[in-house]
Amino acid sequence: MKTNKNIYARACNVLTGGVSRNTIYREPHPYYVANAKGSYVTDIEGVERIDFANNMASLIHGHAHPVINEAVIEQIQKGTAFTMGTEAEVRFAELMIARSGTFERMRFVNSGTEAVMTLIKTSRVYTKKPKIAKAEGAYHGTYDYAEVSQTSNPDNWGTIDKPNSNQVVEGTPQGALNDVIIFPFNDIERTLKILDEHADEIACVLIDPVPHRVGLFPATNVFIEAVYKWTRKNNALMVFDEVVTYRVNYSGAQESYSVKPDLTAMGKIIGGGFPIGALAGRAEIMEVLDPRGKILRHPHSGTFSANPISTTAGRVAMELFDEESVLKLNALTTIAIQQIEESIKIADVPVSITGEGSMFRIHLQENKPICYREAYHTNEKKKIIKDLLDYLFLKEHIIMINTCACMFATSMTQKEVDRLSESLLNGFKVIKPQLYQYH
Amino acid sequence: MKTNKNIYARACNVLTGGVSRNTIYREPHPYYVANAKGSYVTDIEGVERIDFANNMASLIHGHAHPVINEAVIEQIQKGTAFTMGTEAEVRFAELMIARSGTFERMRFVNSGTEAVMTLIKTSRVYTKKPKIAKAEGAYHGTYDYAEVSQTSNPDNWGTIDKPNSNQVVEGTPQGALNDVIIFPFNDIERTLKILDEHADEIACVLIDPVPHRVGLFPATNVFIEAVYKWTRKNNALMVFDEVVTYRVNYSGAQESYSVKPDLTAMGKIIGGGFPIGALAGRAEIMEVLDPRGKILRHPHSGTFSANPISTTAGRVAMELFDEESVLKLNALTTIAIQQIEESIKIADVPVSITGEGSMFRIHLQENKPICYREAYHTNEKKKIIKDLLDYLFLKEHIIMINTCACMFATSMTQKEVDRLSESLLNGFKVIKPQLYQYH
Repeated sequence: MKTNKNIYARACNVLTGGVSRNTIYREPHPYYVANAKGSYVTDIEGVERIDFANNMASLIHGHAHPVINEAVIEQIQKGTAFTMGTEAEVRFAELMIARSGTFERMRFVNSGTEAVMTLIKTSRVYTKKPKIAKAEGAYHGTYDYAEVSQTSNPDNWGTIDKPNSNQVVEGTPQGALNDVIIFPFNDIERTLKILDEHADEIACVLIDPVPHRVGLFPATNVFIEAVYKWTRKNNALMVFDEVVTYRVNYSGAQESYSVKPDLTAMGKIIGGGFPIGALAGRAEIMEVLDPRGKILRHPHSGTFSANPISTTAGRVAMELFDEESVLKLNALTTIAIQQIEESIKIADVPVSITGEGSMFRIHLQENKPICYREAYHTNEKKKIIKDLLDYLFLKEHIIMINTCACMFATSMTQKEVDRLSESLLNGFKVIKPQLYQYH
Repeated sequence: MKTNKNIYARACNVLTGGVSRNTIYREPHPYYVANAKGSYVTDIEGVERIDFANNMASLIHGHAHPVINEAVIEQIQKGTAFTMGTEAEVRFAELMIARSGTFERMRFVNSGTEAVMTLIKTSRVYTKKPKIAKAEGAYHGTYDYAEVSQTSNPDNWGTIDKPNSNQVVEGTPQGALNDVIIFPFNDIERTLKILDEHADEIACVLIDPVPHRVGLFPATNVFIEAVYKWTRKNNALMVFDEVVTYRVNYSGAQESYSVKPDLTAMGKIIGGGFPIGALAGRAEIMEVLDPRGKILRHPHSGTFSANPISTTAGRVAMELFDEESVLKLNALTTIAIQQIEESIKIADVPVSITGEGSMFRIHLQENKPICYREAYHTNEKKKIIKDLLDYLFLKEHIIMINTCACMFATSMTQKEVDRLSESLLNGFKVIKPQLYQYH
């Protein structure tokens, strides 16, 4: 019989650490999916769980949505990839541009990592400047420049007035680290001071407007306005990474701000469950990618970029995620947060919640963190979170993201929300002794 | 009615240059696929063409293979992506490792670009050195470090004894260019001399064993042996980019050499028509990616990496591409080359062919090029190639890659080969006056 344990044993013989993505690793072994439908995932041992992770926020309608599947299966019969165009890419780009005020032109790629890489390269071409600025702790994929200081810790993060540019992967070339300026998210005064020191060299200020790893709380409007104003004055671009946050409003988290990014990277939900990334923004900037120019300033292709499977699945998923659907999902998420806050009160634990739109993150601390350094997990805290998530996964059959976050899907109803808040109440009671010992 | 022209007009309003990948651009407009089956692609105006490009070498069985489709459609009903593992990734890794002598551990990613990026980062971690060496003109995807000098031209390539490290995308940071050493492919003496100058800093020598953009001819065994020996002596890795070339033999182009790479990047055909990339190699090196270590030396994930659609399609495609199938496809390609050489003779044109396995490239020059600088297309030559490819596409209904290359698929038969050699004979006659004017 197949068990999670024996599949993992096989995996260890062929995949490093037995996994192809660190995300799925759990101690003592990961779990393997047999099938999934809507918000429910059944593992190969027959255990059904409610999925609040949705493949790291990428499934806005849950699993195996029948309308998406039907469209994809139809396209599969016609072919999945060509050395020619398809109307699918045009239709999807038309839809995305129609729902946004800031998108004039798009390009599709294969992942969020590729989207952010293309965004940074495009910013450098357009501004003729080599550096980027990004927030300490913010995750933007695995491109060297984009990942600098994502995992900074108390031993290496330096002063908050001038956070260090730290490597995430050993052996990152010093040249790459030198070309990334780190600022503290939402901290206007310090950020502007840091940016000013490199004003002549910064191509773009890269912002995830609700950065998950920083603490999953939104950028303030005054912060975004200050960055925007700075970029106008210094011939730089303000660019958003909305790979995770596009779900926040009908036209992305950027809808909440009085000023808008020049370029936006996307991924996750806009693939409808299939690999995708995208870059969109002002036509004048995107023009550096135009293949019709005499000089190719930014030659760009990609074997599977804009393939008709991802663009068809993505279009259908985004059609279904219309204005009403976005509002309904956000409202359900708000109810969930309220119920969990009630659970926190009943359990009487020092726990807080941050979030925006259809996402939230639970912090094992009384006051909501307002910066990366406050939200940072010490080893002790990591251990308690692991115990909580293990309890939820193994005993309550609830799947959450390993930062203690939930990313909702339209497949959810009040029933799943009730299960979540009850399970968390039980979980809080389990970790309560550890929490008080820690504080 | 939908025409290629009016879809492109719509595309120009939403996609930069009207395309999401430069590859598909043609003057005055790209063509759009309605459906495809095996080796035949029908555009939205109903014109059927024989496809010798196979989405830039990524479809080893042609379009919409029924066995791959059946497996993928079955998986789609069970879900396409999870925050958990699937047996699909394990089964596929088992298959790939079983067919190779050099793969001990694998990781899946979403594209060839991501595979090469992960390969380079892994090499840096393992060797603790920052630089890479790569061949002038070789294409390895769009990661800054991997693309240096891919498009070098007579104005900037420098002397052959010390080829310049040139940017492909404007604004590439000087730091990235400094960390890439360029050598002339297959030129042992010069390459070793160049490598020696940076012996303490080179993490890996990156080699595409049959580099398409260099001229699509194989690395010699003595060249590979010399590089291998150098890397052993200098604490560096020899790594292969087999994104395109894995098709050459049952276990990749590397099967042809007496020494083997430490790490290999893959993509294209191993996705069975769906987005994929992979990294495989020695367990001791791949270990730097292990999530179970106390220190994460190379944290690595990816939302869609190892998704069960790409790994299922890929596994089935590679099962079908068994030893017999590889030999049969290569034999058909050899026949095609012989027939085209006959066409060249009959047309009496100064044209030559290079290639390996199921790939070949036609050069508008009498002698086969033996280096990038010889295969380089001047603007005059580009114009003649464009005329030839336009003639083939528009009049003969033959799709080739825009370098004048063909990448065969198992869906092809003698019938399609005959059509190709006849069409090329006609095409050679069309461009003959220009060719002689040029020479």
